[in-house]
Amino acid sequence: MKTEKIPYKIYLEETEMPKSWYNLRADMQKKPAPLLNPANGKPMTAQELAGVFCDELIAQELDDTTPYFEIPEEIRDFYKMYRPSPLVRAYCLEEKLGTPAKIYYKFEGNNTSGSHKLNSAIAQAYYAKKQGLKGVTTETGAGQWGTALSMACSYFGLDCKVYMVKCSYEQKPFRREVMRTYGASVTPSPSMETEVGKKILLEHPDTTGSLGCAISEAVEKAVTSEGYRYVLGSVLNQVLLHQSVIGLETKAALDKYNIKPDIIIGCAGGGSNLGGLIAPFMGEKLRGEADYRIIAVEPASCPSFTRGVYAYDFCDTGMVCPLAKMYTLGSGFIPSANHAGGLRYHGMSSTLSELYHQGLMEATSVKQTDVFEAAEYFARVEGILPAPESSHAIRVAIDEALKCKETGEEKTIVFGLTGTGYFDMVAYEKFHEGKMSDYIPTDEELAAYRAKLPKVE
Amino acid sequence: MKTEKIPYKIYLEETEMPKSWYNLRADMQKKPAPLLNPANGKPMTAQELAGVFCDELIAQELDDTTPYFEIPEEIRDFYKMYRPSPLVRAYCLEEKLGTPAKIYYKFEGNNTSGSHKLNSAIAQAYYAKKQGLKGVTTETGAGQWGTALSMACSYFGLDCKVYMVKCSYEQKPFRREVMRTYGASVTPSPSMETEVGKKILLEHPDTTGSLGCAISEAVEKAVTSEGYRYVLGSVLNQVLLHQSVIGLETKAALDKYNIKPDIIIGCAGGGSNLGGLIAPFMGEKLRGEADYRIIAVEPASCPSFTRGVYAYDFCDTGMVCPLAKMYTLGSGFIPSANHAGGLRYHGMSSTLSELYHQGLMEATSVKQTDVFEAAEYFARVEGILPAPESSHAIRVAIDEALKCKETGEEKTIVFGLTGTGYFDMVAYEKFHEGKMSDYIPTDEELAAYRAKLPKVE
Repeated sequence: MKTEKIPYKIYLEETEMPKSWYNLRADMQKKPAPLLNPANGKPMTAQELAGVFCDELIAQELDDTTPYFEIPEEIRDFYKMYRPSPLVRAYCLEEKLGTPAKIYYKFEGNNTSGSHKLNSAIAQAYYAKKQGLKGVTTETGAGQWGTALSMACSYFGLDCKVYMVKCSYEQKPFRREVMRTYGASVTPSPSMETEVGKKILLEHPDTTGSLGCAISEAVEKAVTSEGYRYVLGSVLNQVLLHQSVIGLETKAALDKYNIKPDIIIGCAGGGSNLGGLIAPFMGEKLRGEADYRIIAVEPASCPSFTRGVYAYDFCDTGMVCPLAKMYTLGSGFIPSANHAGGLRYHGMSSTLSELYHQGLMEATSVKQTDVFEAAEYFARVEGILPAPESSHAIRVAIDEALKCKETGEEKTIVFGLTGTGYFDMVAYEKFHEGKMSDYIPTDEELAAYRAKLPKVE
Repeated sequence: MKTEKIPYKIYLEETEMPKSWYNLRADMQKKPAPLLNPANGKPMTAQELAGVFCDELIAQELDDTTPYFEIPEEIRDFYKMYRPSPLVRAYCLEEKLGTPAKIYYKFEGNNTSGSHKLNSAIAQAYYAKKQGLKGVTTETGAGQWGTALSMACSYFGLDCKVYMVKCSYEQKPFRREVMRTYGASVTPSPSMETEVGKKILLEHPDTTGSLGCAISEAVEKAVTSEGYRYVLGSVLNQVLLHQSVIGLETKAALDKYNIKPDIIIGCAGGGSNLGGLIAPFMGEKLRGEADYRIIAVEPASCPSFTRGVYAYDFCDTGMVCPLAKMYTLGSGFIPSANHAGGLRYHGMSSTLSELYHQGLMEATSVKQTDVFEAAEYFARVEGILPAPESSHAIRVAIDEALKCKETGEEKTIVFGLTGTGYFDMVAYEKFHEGKMSDYIPTDEELAAYRAKLPKVE
């Protein structure tokens, strides 16, 4: 344990980096509900999933008892190119806020994908390569996941086919170009490359696409192409497992200086970052070794935790994927077009949903303009230009620090800064020009989507 | 000295970060030639410069005998937010190339400005604040310097007026928006805000601007506004002084593992990065303590070192600034519009020019498509998407490593990776689509610019 002044950035030594991922589910007494086959309502078997996903990833997906999975050396070597990520002490932010709170953030943006997504992309690419596959398919909306996967596939010499929601493809040519730099093929979705794409284009020739449609195309392409599988960047248990590297590094860095956080805050869309960040802390909580306030922050325009229901639902809008039990707004829900950035998923990781259901974590939602106000404030004070997604956590971290200012409490706050906003300047521009909206779905709208949830025993 | 395996990334501890900048000129027996006043051909005095630049920066500019300048604590605190930058061992690149060479790069791109420019921006903003000024003015082309200065001014609560070359302003709205996020006012140049801008617009209403014109506007604005001074991101001695933090960190990281480089490579536009990177190594060379091959890499489309002359010339196209003795193509020279990214300056730092003239360093030029080929190769192998500017150094580092492969020599190569290419995807796209040109100025063109050099005794 070090006793000197805590530096601005705590970096682990390379030798201190985690050698295993932590599987949070192993410490849960009541496990997350299993994925169900929509055809027969029974839990999905490894065999049923094998046509879609890589074998070892399926094993990870279904395993809720093994607490640690060794990180293969090849993946650890790749991690060493951009990890450990720094745990930053936000000295400037604290001073500017005039709060007695101590604020730390785990910054995952210092890699070319611009976010934490690379942590799971490289793992999934590794297992695909190990299985002898030719390539993988995926969908991307804002483009962070697609970029991360392109980088990972390039590293292992795998082919990478990305279906990018057409309006993003057209509005975000830079993201597309980064993926092409890494050798990925990027197809605007819907496309004429798949049956589902053709069908949609026939019915709606002018559609600008949706994430749900892109998922359907990517899955179809994977199952109909020899030597290909489909991969996904959030929601799944395997993704949370890989992302536990965020939390494990965070905890190791805090332990090095004997720091105990009081509050841990993360933004939540599908749950990949939040689930990874909180993993070892939630583990301690589950084992009764420590207690923490854990807060999930979601956009008010897509409030799965705070206004959704805990029920079985389709993972995708196209209803081709298995059913998952989760907090959901209904698989038909699409957030207002005005909503900038990610965190647009209608549901939430089953694991996080179950933990929330058990009362082991809190959730809150924040309005878009409040988020961008926090983002700009943070950028000016701490230097880093945050992604809109990450800024949801910043907003709540600032609010909690201001509460400490009122009460005089010296709480320690840790939040996840998942990425940078370099490709989100259109949204920042809207904010600067006062053209950003705070549209929030009405109760009637949410009820209409909820009414369409699948009936599951 | 550490003896274990060299990690992928060598980070100094916060306590090991440099506490002083190193002034290379102090160790030069023959000093760089002084700036001259174009009105009378005599060396510029501090008094003459005081209306344009901040007082302490003028002192640094003119001092060629003091070897070390203490870095003020406020600047060191800011540095701690994004420094030390990593010295990366390019294990993957070495393996892919199959070279016995050992390759290291100092990566300066992990901050929101996306480059090393922030190292000097924060220093210049600090001295402006200390002098009690209201704000500073500057020009920006590609936008890295403008972004860095916006961040620095935001931190110290200074007003920041940026004149951005009009075509960049229109073609790079994201860079502009990042500057606005940091509270800077960004004006497309030429503008109606200055007399020189009005004059140019009257004569050429459809002009898309030039760096030379933007400099003239920024200087005019500074000298005519109460409490403002002009700041510049390259070329000047003060900038090289601040950027020495790059080289000092690099040397400290190498020393920690007892690594002696054989070759040090940096891209060169005005010289800010190269001068900073090589500073302590060149110092050893000047004092006869060590020898290194030092290579400046410039674009073939703007070849100041390799095809320019060593002569007094104006620092700006508008001829409002002092005369500097340097390798220059003539102040009227503007590289082909096809040339992507920075490194477009017609001249070169006086200090580097004198060192080159004395034969203490080499220079080479590289063609644009060869640069982007190296950039893409590097991105795929090492993960980082490099800026076009930085990729000039990558190109030559790879070439030197391939020479080692032929000869079997285990040379140690260090190069400067100055920044990231997130805002340069238009250029990458041109490269991917085979639309990038390799235009190189003809001897006749260069002779015509050279004929217009000012006559100085």
